[in-house]
Amino acid sequence: MKLYSYFRSSAAYRVRIALNLKGLPHEIVPVHLLKGGGEQRTRDYLARNPAGLVPTLQEDDDWSLGQSLAIIEYLDEQYPGIALLPGDARGRARVRSIAQTIACDIHPLNNLRVLQYLKHTLAVGDQARDAWYRHWVGQGLAVIESLLARDSATGRFCHGETPGLADICLVPQVFNARRLSCMLEGLPTILRIEQACMELSAFQQAAPSAQIDAEN
Amino acid sequence: MKLYSYFRSSAAYRVRIALNLKGLPHEIVPVHLLKGGGEQRTRDYLARNPAGLVPTLQEDDDWSLGQSLAIIEYLDEQYPGIALLPGDARGRARVRSIAQTIACDIHPLNNLRVLQYLKHTLAVGDQARDAWYRHWVGQGLAVIESLLARDSATGRFCHGETPGLADICLVPQVFNARRLSCMLEGLPTILRIEQACMELSAFQQAAPSAQIDAEN
Repeated sequence: MKLYSYFRSSAAYRVRIALNLKGLPHEIVPVHLLKGGGEQRTRDYLARNPAGLVPTLQEDDDWSLGQSLAIIEYLDEQYPGIALLPGDARGRARVRSIAQTIACDIHPLNNLRVLQYLKHTLAVGDQARDAWYRHWVGQGLAVIESLLARDSATGRFCHGETPGLADICLVPQVFNARRLSCMLEGLPTILRIEQACMELSAFQQAAPSAQIDAEN
Repeated sequence: MKLYSYFRSSAAYRVRIALNLKGLPHEIVPVHLLKGGGEQRTRDYLARNPAGLVPTLQEDDDWSLGQSLAIIEYLDEQYPGIALLPGDARGRARVRSIAQTIACDIHPLNNLRVLQYLKHTLAVGDQARDAWYRHWVGQGLAVIESLLARDSATGRFCHGETPGLADICLVPQVFNARRLSCMLEGLPTILRIEQACMELSAFQQAAPSAQIDAEN
């Protein structure tokens, strides 16, 4: 299978971690989001993913799928290896809720296309744009910290003793937060879990700096 | 069970439809998002849902869950009644991908808290704010139209002949688009499916105007 990916996309980063955790052989196809107006806007790419966003998963029979969380759940249902979601309905619900707090409440507001709209269409200056970014990250990670710290289901990882969907979303979000110099004080549970994740090669090898299309 | 809901929240609207489609008895607890600084920010509500967003599902044993998509999948897994997701992995992946295109790519940008930030913090005028709203809705619904129109899996509803998770996300998004006078031309598949949904009492009774906390 192939994963259309951009090294810095945190949605692609999520799927890279999932592929590694499941131990699934795959080819990374880089899609440069900035070069030449964005390779995600070419006719070929849009035929595969009409949203013009990364990532896209392509199976060997050419079936394609967009949306990182849908891709991860598909990989988990379709392939053997460690389970990325818990075995019980309430556990799955909790993990999905944490993942969606990142994927629906934080990340969409800080996506490249949104930052570009703020800059080019609304003429928002760099400083106000960084404040926007940090506002949503700060608010969102405080919610995640609260969800994690108050619940005995939290273990070495977001849910118990094995990494799964929630960790897969958390690590790229913390990476982004660091890149934009967001405050990470007051988030001890998040930082502890991030550290546990980053000890695993599945997470290390999915990092932006480890990608074939990595840039400084 | 209880659903903490605001009549105009499209995330709450999704869960209301799901509860109706599953035929699950429930109590609606209105949470007014504007009154007194927002009832979603009270200590009691935040204890139940640290994100301070609606909806929240509360089970009879007091277990609570936030995030509309996580709630809907939980209801579908936990309770009998019609299935809201397809029986095959690729079908589920497709439906989740459509639902997430709405829940991750369109709706988060047009949420009340985001519109308030644009207005109060970035001093974006009403006209530019409406243009922002319409930009993301227009772009997002065009993607959905493309996903639906090109795929033979689309039937009377987004996936086959019974309504499910994708329709549950689509109808509130189209409702919002109408409320903000977004262009709906060029979206024949979406409008056809919306019409099929609105013939069903599960969708009718979940509409904002049918809620106990409805306002003009």
